[in-house]
Amino acid sequence: MSEKKKSPATAIATSSTDQIVVRGRDLVEDLMGKIDFTTMICLHLNGGRLPEPGEVAVVNAVLVALMEHGLTPSSITARLIYDSSPESIQGAVAAGLLGAGSQFLGSTEDAARILQAGVVEIEAGRAVDEVAAELADGFARDRTPVPGFGHHIHRPDDPRAPRLFEIARESGTAGAHQELLLALSRALDEAKGKHITINATGAVAAVLSDVGYPWYALRGFSLIARSAGLIGHVMEEADRPTARALWAMAEREIPYDGDLP
Amino acid sequence: MSEKKKSPATAIATSSTDQIVVRGRDLVEDLMGKIDFTTMICLHLNGGRLPEPGEVAVVNAVLVALMEHGLTPSSITARLIYDSSPESIQGAVAAGLLGAGSQFLGSTEDAARILQAGVVEIEAGRAVDEVAAELADGFARDRTPVPGFGHHIHRPDDPRAPRLFEIARESGTAGAHQELLLALSRALDEAKGKHITINATGAVAAVLSDVGYPWYALRGFSLIARSAGLIGHVMEEADRPTARALWAMAEREIPYDGDLP
Amino acid sequence: MSEKKKSPATAIATSSTDQIVVRGRDLVEDLMGKIDFTTMICLHLNGGRLPEPGEVAVVNAVLVALMEHGLTPSSITARLIYDSSPESIQGAVAAGLLGAGSQFLGSTEDAARILQAGVVEIEAGRAVDEVAAELADGFARDRTPVPGFGHHIHRPDDPRAPRLFEIARESGTAGAHQELLLALSRALDEAKGKHITINATGAVAAVLSDVGYPWYALRGFSLIARSAGLIGHVMEEADRPTARALWAMAEREIPYDGDLP
Amino acid sequence: MSEKKKSPATAIATSSTDQIVVRGRDLVEDLMGKIDFTTMICLHLNGGRLPEPGEVAVVNAVLVALMEHGLTPSSITARLIYDSSPESIQGAVAAGLLGAGSQFLGSTEDAARILQAGVVEIEAGRAVDEVAAELADGFARDRTPVPGFGHHIHRPDDPRAPRLFEIARESGTAGAHQELLLALSRALDEAKGKHITINATGAVAAVLSDVGYPWYALRGFSLIARSAGLIGHVMEEADRPTARALWAMAEREIPYDGDLP
Repeated sequence: MSEKKKSPATAIATSSTDQIVVRGRDLVEDLMGKIDFTTMICLHLNGGRLPEPGEVAVVNAVLVALMEHGLTPSSITARLIYDSSPESIQGAVAAGLLGAGSQFLGSTEDAARILQAGVVEIEAGRAVDEVAAELADGFARDRTPVPGFGHHIHRPDDPRAPRLFEIARESGTAGAHQELLLALSRALDEAKGKHITINATGAVAAVLSDVGYPWYALRGFSLIARSAGLIGHVMEEADRPTARALWAMAEREIPYDGDLP
Repeated sequence: MSEKKKSPATAIATSSTDQIVVRGRDLVEDLMGKIDFTTMICLHLNGGRLPEPGEVAVVNAVLVALMEHGLTPSSITARLIYDSSPESIQGAVAAGLLGAGSQFLGSTEDAARILQAGVVEIEAGRAVDEVAAELADGFARDRTPVPGFGHHIHRPDDPRAPRLFEIARESGTAGAHQELLLALSRALDEAKGKHITINATGAVAAVLSDVGYPWYALRGFSLIARSAGLIGHVMEEADRPTARALWAMAEREIPYDGDLP
Repeated sequence: MSEKKKSPATAIATSSTDQIVVRGRDLVEDLMGKIDFTTMICLHLNGGRLPEPGEVAVVNAVLVALMEHGLTPSSITARLIYDSSPESIQGAVAAGLLGAGSQFLGSTEDAARILQAGVVEIEAGRAVDEVAAELADGFARDRTPVPGFGHHIHRPDDPRAPRLFEIARESGTAGAHQELLLALSRALDEAKGKHITINATGAVAAVLSDVGYPWYALRGFSLIARSAGLIGHVMEEADRPTARALWAMAEREIPYDGDLP
Repeated sequence: MSEKKKSPATAIATSSTDQIVVRGRDLVEDLMGKIDFTTMICLHLNGGRLPEPGEVAVVNAVLVALMEHGLTPSSITARLIYDSSPESIQGAVAAGLLGAGSQFLGSTEDAARILQAGVVEIEAGRAVDEVAAELADGFARDRTPVPGFGHHIHRPDDPRAPRLFEIARESGTAGAHQELLLALSRALDEAKGKHITINATGAVAAVLSDVGYPWYALRGFSLIARSAGLIGHVMEEADRPTARALWAMAEREIPYDGDLP
């Protein structure tokens, strides 16, 4: 990122009567029709650097993997709000995105923070397996959930994780963060005496860290992917409504058990 | 879209212990690493049809064009909310997206609705220029703003519009909606006796209509593009804060003029 | 409301090192401990006029009536979002409020608009029953739902409606809008040959119109009341979770019926 | 709060064809016209207990104090979003409420958590001044900001704080939390060698803790009060627009300083 400056300014975009500039490039001449949307996202979130093809491949795979998970708290929310306010699709999408908080996306950030801190130590000279073992021992001792590991449905492995690792290798971007995550996986299996799933969250953290994104940028990719996912739900809801059935279901299965007058 | 069914169901996604299915395809085998994010978006918003390359080219150009406009009500909002609640990036993005309402995006939908209705008449046998002239006369008579025309900065033309038309032609998707929009532009210039800018909104409406999206899907593309744009603003705000300056500015330039006790 | 002025200014609040002024009054000396929250709301939404006791009684009854309806799309939403992002209660409340759109609150505004337009005619000299009959005939002819009438649960009457009318009469604020709504009810029953419920929405529209609020202020009272309601749901959710059960229910009862790979 | 139960249920509300029950009371018979909105809020956030008059007095004072602060990040946001989407007032209010996060409201919760933990120790036998001195020493040693103390405008004291203390005393609810906050204030002044303002946040934390609210309920009162405040801003914006001026101001004073093509 650019160094902080005293008086507020922005390096994002400007325009004049006949030109629109985004990140130092002419939107019409240099970007539209020349680069795809994923490249544009990378350029924007990277602070203006045109991404390498390998970075674009990894970001595409991450966005494709995260876009859609069917009926989840956030897509159910978008459907309920759309049904209440069909004139405001942006309200339905905004409400759904508000579910992208600590319980679902926090773990991506936590996993990336751990991997990025570990890689700093590895680059300072420590062995990968040593860093991994120390992390695994810490989690085992504290009996805390390990960010990036475990899944309530997918067993023995979340199928998205090995695919993301593979795409990162094929794109030439696999590096120290993936290596550390895999070493941590081996160390955890040993420490716990059983196999712990590497989930999509952990794999996303590793492959995006390997192409250079700081941990706090990761929630951004989920929000972009989910916004596309939620619009698909809203469009399906317009065509095949579920919201009234969801409401009736909630009233039926969550009964009132307070006092009666 | 699929036909409406009695009991609620979804055709979006499902998963089992070892497989995730999105729109009838295996996420890991068929989609990740095989298609890019824009193709995935088209697939999702189209209800499951794999898009032609021309459609992807047009959607890429539209998303690239719409992603970023610098400091606007929605990016200022995202920055203010991020500064208040930096622990909740999703809150900043959601707040910014709530600005995507009638005043800015309504006109894309209105333009698409007009073009799609006009093309129905053309396909039923009327001449393009006749439909265009009738529309232009209506707007001139009612003295109402014409959706898709006019811009407060860009003159004589919004540079994004001709570029979108060009990309649509090059991708082989240019069709009756673009033709009608251009005919309407000529008719308006004649009716008003001066050149009226075709804005990006009108051009987006035409090129997305030509690849087959219904008018009510268009707000979705803006929301996806803007969500990426807003994340870039949040990341810049984290690095180079502007929110406190904006707040001070508002207090200074919008004085209290009510009574005093 | 005050007349529009050229350069932007606000008549809401200002502060100095030792004083806070809200609506022309010293917050600490004149308001805190002197007036209750409902009076403060009236003062604020009225543009600074201290309300009469009758107005406060009616607004209290309306806010008490609207605060809570159990499990509805907006409270289910707040619970789902709280479960995803418990660190951001404001996100849960914001998401829930986004459900306060055209399908639930639009009818309050529509009812108030009709009543306020009708009272203008009555004040210009037309008879109440004539205006009511004309409205009833119009709805019967167009076969459109009548804003403020009908309810999917409460029969023969929504019990809140007569209570609101009674409170308005007791507080001395009942006036032409209530009179017109009751005349419209009689005319509708006659036109349709059966009794149509006056719902809470219609009654709220009448009693708030009678104390002088313009139709477009009415959504505001619902939002205030609902924000309190939603916080109660979030606090109950923290104590007795329902969100995971709601999610499981949705997955179970809204099956995937798309293609399989 | 009630103990957790196995199968999901709610004690908030239920209804039948002729009755609406909220918190074990008949809405129409027992609540509407019998209690005011503030009492209804207390009843709801307390889990169903009818509040004492002293509790209602304190909650009224808190809600009146928090409702309105003029142009702040959250009211500026509501105005910008309203201008973009005037058809969706709920979107403007929701966007504004999203600013009620850690930077502004987090400190109320932090202050209440500290006071509530301190009072547990005092009730277990420690002296108030000893607990206060220990807290003050800790903050002085760590050089961290003290939740509930300090203000960027109000000096030497935030006028709302002493007024809230006074109202709590007059209402007979002042207790150990207020006593501890005042002892902490004396200890901080001594430890720092200068007077540190007790801000409204600290005073709200003390007086609401003294009437029995858990620290995590406090954000709720701010959200209710702010929702009323934001609606006043939206209504003023409808009458006397500021959003376009704010946008122009932002573009003018936050210039683009990135590269040019």
